[in-house]
Amino acid sequence: MFIRNAWYIAAWANEVGQAPLARTILNETLVLFRDKAGKLGALEDRCCHRGTPLRFGEVVDGGLRCGYHGLVFDGSGSCVSIPGQVKIPSKACVRSYPLVEKDEFVWIWMGDPNDADSSKILNYPFHNDHAKWPHKHERYHIKASYKLMIDNLMDMTHLAYVHKKTIGGNPKIHVNAQMAVTPNENGLHYLRWMLDCDPPPTYQKAVTFKGKVDRWQEFEFIAPSSIVQWSGALDVGLSAQENRNQDGGFSLRLFHGLTPETESSCHYFWSTANGYRQDEPEATEQLFSEISTAFMEDKEIVQGQQAMLSATGEDRLVDIVSDAARIHMRRTLERLQRAEKPAPPG
Amino acid sequence: MFIRNAWYIAAWANEVGQAPLARTILNETLVLFRDKAGKLGALEDRCCHRGTPLRFGEVVDGGLRCGYHGLVFDGSGSCVSIPGQVKIPSKACVRSYPLVEKDEFVWIWMGDPNDADSSKILNYPFHNDHAKWPHKHERYHIKASYKLMIDNLMDMTHLAYVHKKTIGGNPKIHVNAQMAVTPNENGLHYLRWMLDCDPPPTYQKAVTFKGKVDRWQEFEFIAPSSIVQWSGALDVGLSAQENRNQDGGFSLRLFHGLTPETESSCHYFWSTANGYRQDEPEATEQLFSEISTAFMEDKEIVQGQQAMLSATGEDRLVDIVSDAARIHMRRTLERLQRAEKPAPPG
Amino acid sequence: MFIRNAWYIAAWANEVGQAPLARTILNETLVLFRDKAGKLGALEDRCCHRGTPLRFGEVVDGGLRCGYHGLVFDGSGSCVSIPGQVKIPSKACVRSYPLVEKDEFVWIWMGDPNDADSSKILNYPFHNDHAKWPHKHERYHIKASYKLMIDNLMDMTHLAYVHKKTIGGNPKIHVNAQMAVTPNENGLHYLRWMLDCDPPPTYQKAVTFKGKVDRWQEFEFIAPSSIVQWSGALDVGLSAQENRNQDGGFSLRLFHGLTPETESSCHYFWSTANGYRQDEPEATEQLFSEISTAFMEDKEIVQGQQAMLSATGEDRLVDIVSDAARIHMRRTLERLQRAEKPAPPG
Repeated sequence: MFIRNAWYIAAWANEVGQAPLARTILNETLVLFRDKAGKLGALEDRCCHRGTPLRFGEVVDGGLRCGYHGLVFDGSGSCVSIPGQVKIPSKACVRSYPLVEKDEFVWIWMGDPNDADSSKILNYPFHNDHAKWPHKHERYHIKASYKLMIDNLMDMTHLAYVHKKTIGGNPKIHVNAQMAVTPNENGLHYLRWMLDCDPPPTYQKAVTFKGKVDRWQEFEFIAPSSIVQWSGALDVGLSAQENRNQDGGFSLRLFHGLTPETESSCHYFWSTANGYRQDEPEATEQLFSEISTAFMEDKEIVQGQQAMLSATGEDRLVDIVSDAARIHMRRTLERLQRAEKPAPPG
Repeated sequence: MFIRNAWYIAAWANEVGQAPLARTILNETLVLFRDKAGKLGALEDRCCHRGTPLRFGEVVDGGLRCGYHGLVFDGSGSCVSIPGQVKIPSKACVRSYPLVEKDEFVWIWMGDPNDADSSKILNYPFHNDHAKWPHKHERYHIKASYKLMIDNLMDMTHLAYVHKKTIGGNPKIHVNAQMAVTPNENGLHYLRWMLDCDPPPTYQKAVTFKGKVDRWQEFEFIAPSSIVQWSGALDVGLSAQENRNQDGGFSLRLFHGLTPETESSCHYFWSTANGYRQDEPEATEQLFSEISTAFMEDKEIVQGQQAMLSATGEDRLVDIVSDAARIHMRRTLERLQRAEKPAPPG
Repeated sequence: MFIRNAWYIAAWANEVGQAPLARTILNETLVLFRDKAGKLGALEDRCCHRGTPLRFGEVVDGGLRCGYHGLVFDGSGSCVSIPGQVKIPSKACVRSYPLVEKDEFVWIWMGDPNDADSSKILNYPFHNDHAKWPHKHERYHIKASYKLMIDNLMDMTHLAYVHKKTIGGNPKIHVNAQMAVTPNENGLHYLRWMLDCDPPPTYQKAVTFKGKVDRWQEFEFIAPSSIVQWSGALDVGLSAQENRNQDGGFSLRLFHGLTPETESSCHYFWSTANGYRQDEPEATEQLFSEISTAFMEDKEIVQGQQAMLSATGEDRLVDIVSDAARIHMRRTLERLQRAEKPAPPG
């Protein structure tokens, strides 16, 4: 069961061109494309003639042409041409989905199209500020529910065990972190401080510290599936807690978009932006490489967790203190799930 | 649900030797072999002792010997030897299937053996006329119902989209083709003419035309799963419609045998014969190579269609004008299906 | 359905170190490890916090630490540490399994831990006698029920067909073998003599015979899943039937442990010891290599058998004379299965 009345990331904007791109979202197989005018379209990936996936087709004047017998569909899903046939039956159409291109993302609305309100899409201005936030992005296919991936990001104590070699740092630091969770209308915010600690390997590769640092992790969860992160560290003595916006330290912005593919798999759209050495492309590359490695560590363990939970169910699990943000996040999802309109009959 | 009371192609004759050949047909796993006298046999691929597949066995005097504990079965499926045991229990037998070798095919009867009438097997004399119809054959494994593969061959408009680079030619030509469908007792016949058109790439590689051609495609569907095709083209002005049997043009004969493996997979037995440059083996090779490429294009798109239909069912599909022959073919299959005797109890 | 109240081989002792080893036994996924003191542990491979497999963890002081959020479990399955949390909930535990290390095996008890009586584990002293019985061991993963693998070892007539090139020898010899089956409390014993026969290829590679040999195969099946084998041959004229313990011939000891993984797969733990040329490591290697080849032949055919039986069931199978030991073995398993206590409610 999915939350349908929500905007999800369907793709990175630069993934979608005239060549049809097939993607499964919320268990529905879609095809994304740009028409000859560059306009985005998302159609059901199934021709209404014989069920052939439209991904085998190509963009022609008027829309996307099926690669089997040549029916053409426009961006609204209407069939506009049947070779050798003048009259087009009114039933000849495929489902279409509202799309919005914004901040390098292609957002898709999976619910009732009449309820698609693009003003509700979150803003991520950092993708438009290449000077201050140079960045790179990626998509990982994850064989785990998007919920388990969001779980992962709601409990930072895992850094000590999963990411020892990258973004982790000393386990004790994570255990003793100051953690403030603030629920809000769309999800929650949390801020985590690790004061007077050793900078982890990824930070040390990026900038030069004098010694110990004051380190923060700030997360905003926007239900159902976006997480905006700002993390960093400053030398002890620079009053980081009063003002994090100082030059000379380390900071990064991460965007995490977890779009359900099936009940037990998801697309992980993420970007990483370096808030230091912005004029050095190799700094952006290096950070991206470090984060890629760390997220592969997450992917491996979360996929293992999904396989085990798929086999054994969720009985006999025990919550611990560090689950606070995770538990709030799950309650938000449950509230949204309950608010879903029942599917129309038929 | 399959049409059982019918002859199907089980193999090419030259596929079957003494080495046992396992093959699944209509969801039943068989083993094909030739005994020491060269006689063909088709047995259930499951020893009646411990269920071991007989494909692990070998041909010995008397029949096929199981590769596990040495029971020997003759071509009728009777156990004729149990090592170390004098008395052979009457229950010791496996199912056998009637076979007929003809025109380079091995035909198998999957229904009640008492109803197997070999006079009902179609004739394909071109396989025996190597001088006039030099040919090569192939078997493709297709992850799609045999019905979807026959669908493919009943609507030639797909050539314009699926086979642009091989046997397709200009899309408009296909749309404007003259098409005559004639139902008959065993299925249907259709003849398609594309007059005054450009020859497609495969034709041009094979022979030299003066310019535009008159092109035909003639198909005979013999239910449940054979299609005999004769296609070709002559220079405009040679009155092709009155007499196609002229030297100097292009023509080929294709045999298409679609034998169900499971409900959603089949064996595609096909041969191609060149009716031009018969003394040049490289012409036969080149045509075979072109057709192989084209049929791989069909395989890819039909497998995509099957996967989509398996996931979504056949609801909401819309027939179009070019479906005429396909719809008749499906009705023939439905009629044969209804005529099947119910399976015997137990 | 499995026989739970029994000792099974979980691993070779040298497979288990501090690095966690995941293994599925009787459909339960376990993790095996040695703690910092070298003590063996077997835990449910599923952390009680979020279900993450403990195989991702590492051994630390106190036990095995989960690789996700750092909970530590001791060998009894109790959680002994939760990072950042003083109080450990009483529900925070995972299932543990009794283990015994003996004769190079790690034995596991899969039933009620209160019933685990290590005195019931069989003795295999040959693993401790490296001078007289130098040996090597292996584990094969078999995609077949452990019962089909034991079947295989209860009917030696298969050697003539499956192992022609290795340990088989002339088929007629196997058919005419003298065979004595003796049921006993724990299973059965059988002794098979093939007198005045040609030594098979494996034997001939190992030692030099004058010509024909008297050959024996002695098997002890200890339910539910161990088989102890002593096989060999002496030159005709040496009165092998009166005294097999003579120098100069060929003899080997094989241990076969078949531990169920799932209903249709198992772990095959086997060792081979050479009772000749004990001072030559290459003799041990050569024998191991020959037996590895032969057991791969078994694996292939038994996996084929399992696939067929999974698809078609066990109807219409016919017992033959050589099934005597197999049938007795199966009756023993059925008796043990009936004696199983019903699982506790919940």
